[in-house]
Amino acid sequence: MSLPAFDPPVLPLFQSKAQSNARLAIALGRRSYPIDIGRLDWAELAQGLTAPGRLALIVSNVTVDPLFGERLQAALRPVYAEVERLVLPDGEAHKDWRSLQAIQSRLAQLQADRRGTLFALGGGVVGDLTGFAAAVWMRGARFVQVPTTLLAQVDSSVGGKTGINLPEGKNLVGAFHQPAAVWADLGTLTSLPAREYAAGLAEVVKYGPIADPVFFDWLEAQADALAARQPEALAVAVRRSCEIKAAVVAADEEERGLRAILNFAHTFGHALEAGAGYGHLLHGEAVALGMRMAARLSVACCGLPAAQADRLDALLQRLGLPQSAPALDDARWLALMRGDKKSQAGRIRYVVLPRWGQAALAELDDAAALAAVRSVPLA
Amino acid sequence: MSLPAFDPPVLPLFQSKAQSNARLAIALGRRSYPIDIGRLDWAELAQGLTAPGRLALIVSNVTVDPLFGERLQAALRPVYAEVERLVLPDGEAHKDWRSLQAIQSRLAQLQADRRGTLFALGGGVVGDLTGFAAAVWMRGARFVQVPTTLLAQVDSSVGGKTGINLPEGKNLVGAFHQPAAVWADLGTLTSLPAREYAAGLAEVVKYGPIADPVFFDWLEAQADALAARQPEALAVAVRRSCEIKAAVVAADEEERGLRAILNFAHTFGHALEAGAGYGHLLHGEAVALGMRMAARLSVACCGLPAAQADRLDALLQRLGLPQSAPALDDARWLALMRGDKKSQAGRIRYVVLPRWGQAALAELDDAAALAAVRSVPLA
Repeated sequence: MSLPAFDPPVLPLFQSKAQSNARLAIALGRRSYPIDIGRLDWAELAQGLTAPGRLALIVSNVTVDPLFGERLQAALRPVYAEVERLVLPDGEAHKDWRSLQAIQSRLAQLQADRRGTLFALGGGVVGDLTGFAAAVWMRGARFVQVPTTLLAQVDSSVGGKTGINLPEGKNLVGAFHQPAAVWADLGTLTSLPAREYAAGLAEVVKYGPIADPVFFDWLEAQADALAARQPEALAVAVRRSCEIKAAVVAADEEERGLRAILNFAHTFGHALEAGAGYGHLLHGEAVALGMRMAARLSVACCGLPAAQADRLDALLQRLGLPQSAPALDDARWLALMRGDKKSQAGRIRYVVLPRWGQAALAELDDAAALAAVRSVPLA
Repeated sequence: MSLPAFDPPVLPLFQSKAQSNARLAIALGRRSYPIDIGRLDWAELAQGLTAPGRLALIVSNVTVDPLFGERLQAALRPVYAEVERLVLPDGEAHKDWRSLQAIQSRLAQLQADRRGTLFALGGGVVGDLTGFAAAVWMRGARFVQVPTTLLAQVDSSVGGKTGINLPEGKNLVGAFHQPAAVWADLGTLTSLPAREYAAGLAEVVKYGPIADPVFFDWLEAQADALAARQPEALAVAVRRSCEIKAAVVAADEEERGLRAILNFAHTFGHALEAGAGYGHLLHGEAVALGMRMAARLSVACCGLPAAQADRLDALLQRLGLPQSAPALDDARWLALMRGDKKSQAGRIRYVVLPRWGQAALAELDDAAALAAVRSVPLA
């Protein structure tokens, strides 16, 4: 992986709106695409889409559509002959077969052809679902990610992982399907509830321990500014997160190796989400707790200094993330973690930190994993 | 496309079972795979699979599973720790969401990981459905095609097109996902009902007009032997069909150009299937009628000599394929054909024959298409 250097900016840094806008490129040959970050003009970006088809279908949910649905539809009208909106229920529980079928049925009713484009307007659920719907419509239609949550902007909208959940586990059904563009409009984040915003910061923090210690230092220095949604700090955080994710994905699009490091904390996190019952913990909240567990596991098994795990705990606390985990018995923990996609032939593989700023995969004893789980207080 | 030469064999040609077995390679870089054709030893082929996972799930239907399910399960047992069978209802109507969900649920219950392998044991419906289930399980699991119908052996099992039907049209939801291997066992064809066998021959015949006039000549000469399921003739027909398909797919895996020629007759054929109501016409029967229409369209619009269309009609008749089409009014015809995946922005694109043995895409007047439709007698 070739990661562009991070030159920690001293904030307040940006003197104008234009300076905070950035376009990153995700380098995947024929599947390359731009990620625009900042206060964005959707109409201008729409004009820049190459070879738009006849039809655009905006997929959103009952929370986000009233905020931005009409604005996006208006921005797309000069470019597409037909611009439709499909509004789904909100929440992780609806990242399911029923919602997928609703999108496919709508496309069929609209007689969408292969060049129809889907626009995912919302958070990670809408993005994963809409991306998967695009992946399988006529064996591959185009889609544009318009992420409106911090978590989606810094993580799920970039990289082409799409899918739905089954009752047995998250993202068990899906596809690798890259978007044609990502429009990460920081303006959409002002309406985000505090809990969702903090959950997004968890995925931002993640990039430090796995890839960039200097970025982590900067996040510590800017924790108050970030917690207060200070726009300049936010712009830097989103941009750097996307840079790291783009570099990892470009090096390993289909997760044959390196990309697995992005799943740091996710074996624990997915188990926490499922164990608490979907909807009780936000994904980012589960990742925050999972990071604490994965860091303690790294201290116990892989030589990570405990002081680094302490720093991680402290930063997550300052950013308003939950400090305690739901109570689950050991057998339930292991069963949930074994269902994770990273496990092979029943053995559990964890992403650990042999050094601060560097991640690796390790198969570890159940006892060590359970000790790490117990290092986090119970709710 | 680089097509290996066809040296028309004089039958009876093969003196031993071994001589009729063949292994073709489909050349797709990292996604390359072998196609074995003949009287096959499944246990031996199973031993040759690289890096098998823990679990094999055989997907079949109520008609095929009783014939070959146990044999395949026994052949896989020495290779996989766990070999399960899932038996679905039979028929095109079951290439749907419900069957797809049944496969995914079973995989989840079995805690299949990414290296689990699906085996599609059956005809085109089982193959398309199982391939799609593999494509989306954990964003891409392996599958092996074990086609037991002639149509599946010469067409649908090769090339990686997978998917399900929607009420609005066939194969609207799907993925390109190449199998790890294709086992085209000619021994499975002896149990095939006469109608299904003849329907498979329609797809064999198709390769002549679009790619290989010499093969068509040979098919004319061997029509009686083929209609009588003479094993040597059948072995040649299946092998040459797979050779042509493999060459086309290798040149254009995701149907950005050339591969569309394989859809010769399918715009008409899909409309016939949907118009007659799924289950009334077999896919190959609809393709046979569609070929007659597409050939007449080529005569009317593209300079194909009428004598070639006459030859096609005569061969299809000798092979026992239907000679008359269901009655549909013009508006219904056009609506059904517009729903076809090849149409773009509402215009209908047809695969036509500017010359015998060569296919091309053309956008043609509705009037010309309807005249071609009317050239075939009504049932």
